Amino acid sequence: MELKECLKLRRDTRHFTNDPVPDNFLEEALNAAHMAPSVGLSEPWRFVVIKNDETKRIIKSNFERARANAETTKNMDKQSLDIHKSLKLEAITSSPMGIAVFSAVDTDGYILGTSTNRDTLNWSVACAIQNMWLSLTENGYSLGWVSILDYQSLKATLKVPSNWHPLGYLCIGKPADDYDSQPMLQQKGWKKQSDAPTVLFR
Amino acid sequence: MELKECLKLRRDTRHFTNDPVPDNFLEEALNAAHMAPSVGLSEPWRFVVIKNDETKRIIKSNFERARANAETTKNMDKQSLDIHKSLKLEAITSSPMGIAVFSAVDTDGYILGTSTNRDTLNWSVACAIQNMWLSLTENGYSLGWVSILDYQSLKATLKVPSNWHPLGYLCIGKPADDYDSQPMLQQKGWKKQSDAPTVLFR
Repeated sequence: MELKECLKLRRDTRHFTNDPVPDNFLEEALNAAHMAPSVGLSEPWRFVVIKNDETKRIIKSNFERARANAETTKNMDKQSLDIHKSLKLEAITSSPMGIAVFSAVDTDGYILGTSTNRDTLNWSVACAIQNMWLSLTENGYSLGWVSILDYQSLKATLKVPSNWHPLGYLCIGKPADDYDSQPMLQQKGWKKQSDAPTVLFR
Repeated sequence: MELKECLKLRRDTRHFTNDPVPDNFLEEALNAAHMAPSVGLSEPWRFVVIKNDETKRIIKSNFERARANAETTKNMDKQSLDIHKSLKLEAITSSPMGIAVFSAVDTDGYILGTSTNRDTLNWSVACAIQNMWLSLTENGYSLGWVSILDYQSLKATLKVPSNWHPLGYLCIGKPADDYDSQPMLQQKGWKKQSDAPTVLFR
């Protein structure tokens, strides 16, 4: 698929069919992720593939607690709270596969490019997620990035090494809805896309 | 260009020709960035386009101080330090254009998806940078992401609003070198790419 078409079709998906994700598409997506830029060639992305129903249920409960917490503490007005409660914000148990994504490095030594900001490692992992997303889109699949999670609980559930830093849980599958070719949050009246990015000239 | 080809050709570029970046390619790159996913549809990316030589010189001095600081404080062994000193890590004054990239939101209110981690905003901006990178690559241009910078000084130099959080400075232009189709850091002996990403199955 042409890059431009792929950038345009990519959606944050919350509604999936029951079709399983073919192994070769998963492999392509992970390879695309591995082609991302990384600070100091650190390749800090770590992926945990989840197909087990019980594990998904535990992570969904984690999400539900975090969501309820946002809804009780974030002082939304009545209309916003009503929309918020009606939004489908994840598909953890209703997507065939999940990938939890982490950043980590296996050295205590110097990593080129991180001396003024260690967050650069997470930004590399975000680029890898975007590559994965585009690869899935090209193959007719998609993902939904869930970030409303207690990250420490997620780590405990998945028993990952203590130095792995979570970036979220990706629900992966074949889209059942394209939200009228726009972000779901716009279609559902939560927020509108702007026409162009903010650009200053110096 | 096909997505797969574009993912493969994308390089972190530190050597540029003197060719200016055509306005339509800049516009395409910014539009590609604006098509990135963003947490809660927050579109937190902010771009500052820099063509002014004096501004570039100030930012290059900023980089040189940060680099020197890394070389004196990071306890590299002799061989690593020698390689580090020989690496071209930026092209701030030798690329026709720079874009400083920031994340910011113009609200104190609740942004969906950020309740458990505000860093999600920066991750959205990293995805936007990756989209921009792919768009430039498609058009025969590239960028080099410079993160060895005193971020507070960068903000002061560019007089951006205080709530703008810097992700780095992108040197943009036409590549003068493709590093034998591999990351420059590998070509120069700093670090090797691994064959595949780390993937666990649960």
